[in-house]
Amino acid sequence: MTIQTRFETADNGVNVAALMGAREALEAAPEAGQFTWRAECEWMNGTHSRSTVSGFHGLGAEQARAQSFTIDSDHPTVFAAEDKAPTPVEIVLSGLAGCLSAGVAAVAQRRGIQLRSVRATVEGDMDIAGILGIDPDVRNGFSAIRVTFHVDADATDDEIRAVIAQSQKRSAVFDIVTNPTNVEVSVA
Amino acid sequence: MTIQTRFETADNGVNVAALMGAREALEAAPEAGQFTWRAECEWMNGTHSRSTVSGFHGLGAEQARAQSFTIDSDHPTVFAAEDKAPTPVEIVLSGLAGCLSAGVAAVAQRRGIQLRSVRATVEGDMDIAGILGIDPDVRNGFSAIRVTFHVDADATDDEIRAVIAQSQKRSAVFDIVTNPTNVEVSVA
Repeated sequence: MTIQTRFETADNGVNVAALMGAREALEAAPEAGQFTWRAECEWMNGTHSRSTVSGFHGLGAEQARAQSFTIDSDHPTVFAAEDKAPTPVEIVLSGLAGCLSAGVAAVAQRRGIQLRSVRATVEGDMDIAGILGIDPDVRNGFSAIRVTFHVDADATDDEIRAVIAQSQKRSAVFDIVTNPTNVEVSVA
Repeated sequence: MTIQTRFETADNGVNVAALMGAREALEAAPEAGQFTWRAECEWMNGTHSRSTVSGFHGLGAEQARAQSFTIDSDHPTVFAAEDKAPTPVEIVLSGLAGCLSAGVAAVAQRRGIQLRSVRATVEGDMDIAGILGIDPDVRNGFSAIRVTFHVDADATDDEIRAVIAQSQKRSAVFDIVTNPTNVEVSVA
């Protein structure tokens, strides 16, 4: 099977032609690439909150969606909470997994690799002496994160490894987690 | 109204006594504070994936939950995708909002401040020239994040500001976003 044949037949559901077109369009009009993503969070009770995701700003305009999405968060019963939803840190791990998986599908598509299944297990280690304020030398967040991919695809192990490496290289959430970002918190 | 009266009457749904007990217990048995949080992600099609959050490791044992939770992610139609779910970066913003909001409820409870409503708007700026690979000097993640709280509570503006500041100081996701974390990606 030649590369050309693979490129023509692989279908992972990613519109690579449209993405390449968007890239060309943005090279000509870089200001359209300035996006602002949003979440609106409402405290429910205790440690339970609900975030709503709807519109965002991008391509020079406010972008509406056909539907809005909600993401609830809570703490588990071992923290004396009601466990109505995943914890905020599990939500971040889910975002990381989703970002890398979307990247795997897009990069594989571009390389003509047909994916059959992609699963990722994401684990984050945390010493809760940080968030409980027991030890000021322990950070509040994860001490380490491990992502393990299980990929069944029409490709060699080396090709799969290269696809995952390229996904990391272009992943927004991988960057957010591995590098610092300034967060400004204010009260209206 | 005295501080003591406020402490006795405020009820934000957070069990502060249990959290203080957990803190004392962990000071005596620090190894119990080593947690591992997990998400299992399955690629659906295109940029659409589904993460499942169920058990975690903590307090020296595997902790099951009464239910598992799913968090889907996708890309929007402006990226030629099907917009079946929030983007991974909006999921991270939701996790940040949920983490800070849970902290506000817990800190307010401990300080005897009755909350009536807490809303947070979280915005993240991103130049998509990064993720599209147009400009290697543009990062893939957020260039800046802004969190704006609207709090209605039985407290002065200064007290509300102090509660939010303490929530930041103890927030796992605030730490994850503002500081770097090592992420190891492997293929099984």
